[in-house]
Amino acid sequence: MKPVKVGLLGLGTVGGGTVNVLRRNAEEITRRAGRGIVISHAAARSLDKPRLCDTTGIRLTTDPNEVVDDPGVDVVVELIGGYDLARELVLRAIANGKHVVTANKALIAKYGNEIFAAASRQGVVVAFEAAVAGGIPIIKAIREGLAGNRIEWLAGIINGTGNFILTEMRDKGREFADVLAEAQRFGYAEADPTFDVEGIDAAHKLTILASIAFGIPLQFEHAYTEGITRITPTDVTYAEQLGYRIKHLGMARRVESGIELRVHPTLIPERRLIANVDGVMNAVLVQGDAVGPTLYYGAGAGAEATASAVVADLVDVVRVLTTDPNNRVPHLAFQADALSDLPILPMEQVQTAYYLRLQAEDSPGVLADITRILGDQGISIEAVLQKEPSEGQSHVPLIFLTQRTLEAKMNGAIDAIEALECISGQVVRIRLEHLDSHR
Amino acid sequence: MKPVKVGLLGLGTVGGGTVNVLRRNAEEITRRAGRGIVISHAAARSLDKPRLCDTTGIRLTTDPNEVVDDPGVDVVVELIGGYDLARELVLRAIANGKHVVTANKALIAKYGNEIFAAASRQGVVVAFEAAVAGGIPIIKAIREGLAGNRIEWLAGIINGTGNFILTEMRDKGREFADVLAEAQRFGYAEADPTFDVEGIDAAHKLTILASIAFGIPLQFEHAYTEGITRITPTDVTYAEQLGYRIKHLGMARRVESGIELRVHPTLIPERRLIANVDGVMNAVLVQGDAVGPTLYYGAGAGAEATASAVVADLVDVVRVLTTDPNNRVPHLAFQADALSDLPILPMEQVQTAYYLRLQAEDSPGVLADITRILGDQGISIEAVLQKEPSEGQSHVPLIFLTQRTLEAKMNGAIDAIEALECISGQVVRIRLEHLDSHR
Repeated sequence: MKPVKVGLLGLGTVGGGTVNVLRRNAEEITRRAGRGIVISHAAARSLDKPRLCDTTGIRLTTDPNEVVDDPGVDVVVELIGGYDLARELVLRAIANGKHVVTANKALIAKYGNEIFAAASRQGVVVAFEAAVAGGIPIIKAIREGLAGNRIEWLAGIINGTGNFILTEMRDKGREFADVLAEAQRFGYAEADPTFDVEGIDAAHKLTILASIAFGIPLQFEHAYTEGITRITPTDVTYAEQLGYRIKHLGMARRVESGIELRVHPTLIPERRLIANVDGVMNAVLVQGDAVGPTLYYGAGAGAEATASAVVADLVDVVRVLTTDPNNRVPHLAFQADALSDLPILPMEQVQTAYYLRLQAEDSPGVLADITRILGDQGISIEAVLQKEPSEGQSHVPLIFLTQRTLEAKMNGAIDAIEALECISGQVVRIRLEHLDSHR
Repeated sequence: MKPVKVGLLGLGTVGGGTVNVLRRNAEEITRRAGRGIVISHAAARSLDKPRLCDTTGIRLTTDPNEVVDDPGVDVVVELIGGYDLARELVLRAIANGKHVVTANKALIAKYGNEIFAAASRQGVVVAFEAAVAGGIPIIKAIREGLAGNRIEWLAGIINGTGNFILTEMRDKGREFADVLAEAQRFGYAEADPTFDVEGIDAAHKLTILASIAFGIPLQFEHAYTEGITRITPTDVTYAEQLGYRIKHLGMARRVESGIELRVHPTLIPERRLIANVDGVMNAVLVQGDAVGPTLYYGAGAGAEATASAVVADLVDVVRVLTTDPNNRVPHLAFQADALSDLPILPMEQVQTAYYLRLQAEDSPGVLADITRILGDQGISIEAVLQKEPSEGQSHVPLIFLTQRTLEAKMNGAIDAIEALECISGQVVRIRLEHLDSHR
């Protein structure tokens, strides 16, 4: 059978990795797919930049439309990133009847509903395994591997840069800004690190995971996002003394009234496997009603790790080239006409446990004031850690772990605590998830 | 569309779980598959035993052939276990043109080549996700999710009973026999625990994983299998002092001369995620050349965890019902005519590192004798741990960690060490794998 011809949009890190993996493993990939896969066309912004890969035999152009419009291209692989140009090119490829593989989480999180609808009308596939957690086959695992389950919740460390920073802060007691600067020097973090450290990148990926887990349309605009820029070595240390690690976690949970969808720094019990996922590695913990907890771990970024997911999608596309379109795995795991309209809950309606750190006067009655405020809101205390005042300091750090409560109640309690005369400055609040099977 | 009709062979733990999951999650499963899946027929050894599940609406029989031969059954799910009857029924179902889903690792490991050939001739699918690591979608992950990779090696904790026993031995310092008896009381271990504690069950699963990872026919008869019955709390403790955990690991590795395929107790550095997989949980670590290391973790057994995999396979079968048979995912990941004839290596040709424990006279010159023997075989020593003699004992425990070497050389060294006058009893030898990315 003739090989399948692939047109690449973008010849940067992941594009170069994809060319290299397809070349190096051509024989094994053909043995699996039953048909060869070759890159026949590629578009890049500049044609005379040094490349990760050998481009011999690939028809190069600076105009991505040439790739998208070429009748010789069977599948378009979109690796240029960003929102608008990517959307335009992907929709144009679909309109031309081409299957699409993309690693672009921003595109899928924001325009996925529109793109999948267009793909369904045209009878083509849009595959996006590489958009979440790099080479970990997490989309396939949830969409197909756990198809028998009602997914109850999932929690992911899905931004390698953020996890690298938090791991370094913990291992070496260093400040956030300090580690970020180093990560930028090593190329682990972008010059503008906003997407990573503010949790936007993680929220893109979480939005996608929540859709395929719960059968809901993509709703990035309703995701709650909080970054790691205000995490201090102090909080990392106190968390550790209490038996927890701080991770930048994406959580999606089905509760009676809707879906929790949130990315924020989170304390996790140190004995959980996912609490020990360090450095730039990613992991997603999925709780299904039949299978219980399952965890998927691997590299969340990098040229060849991401290429691994791109090529897996290409192999899947090769197989579906002759499949009845009505019988394929649906883009969002559930049939397009069977998505549900469960609401994404506003953060005030979300329940979690909390770590609170505050600076209190070292005087009797302070603890009673705070516990009364928490009690008034119906918030139960799990643990209190009272540290000795430093030499010459009138205020002492007080750390509370609470049981699960509504975010709205915690907001009320924190307002009341900060209004106390005996409290100095703001309350540090970090959410805490036990990630046990039951919730 | 009419629902797909499933005939169950076996209504025990997994059969009951499958009925319950398909009922409870019927709405979500139909939303995913685009078509309902119902159990229409079931065969059980006895019809008046108490059941895990409600059998209303299911046509029950004690004759499995009735299920296999009924023209109303679209897919046969084989859950009776064992070799011969299962083989006969599965081949008969295939001959009748029915798709088959099975959780039977023994059957696939031993008769898989014959069964897949028969299925290919008939154009039907035999799906076996539930045969390895229960609900973890590890077959799908390797076969499809990592399709772009050349798999270099994989290592799995794939027997929950054995892992429960080793975890208890470590956590509580208890003896093997003692923990096994308890596991039998709790129902974690069979009355005859041979398959679990001798590694046969793990070798069945490893055989299957190796085939889909490397594209080789199933070769259970060439797997090296060593049990955990001779692991003592002493070795668990010494391993821990050296920074390792002892796990019953299945390893499959591609080396230049062929494939290593082996199940044996193994020391693993305690910082590896897989070293922290405890109790009855399973995990498989897979090293691909593009993706790097990925890990898959979850429940390896249990009614609903296994049912989760059975139902995922059923959903896949529903999709392939209208797919071009030549274009499906191949049973063993690689196209049937593209399997390779790489040999499975005999254990003497396998390379690993080692933990050795021996009882030596507390006298000068002993250490020199042993290091000379190891040196003569070209075996490098990584660490030595010399313990104080117990009160009134003339012999002291000596523990060595070695670098990687050929098993044949280690056999020679151990023979020579045991022949020394100053050594009492046999050398305890446990293999050690670093499980880092490079080997």
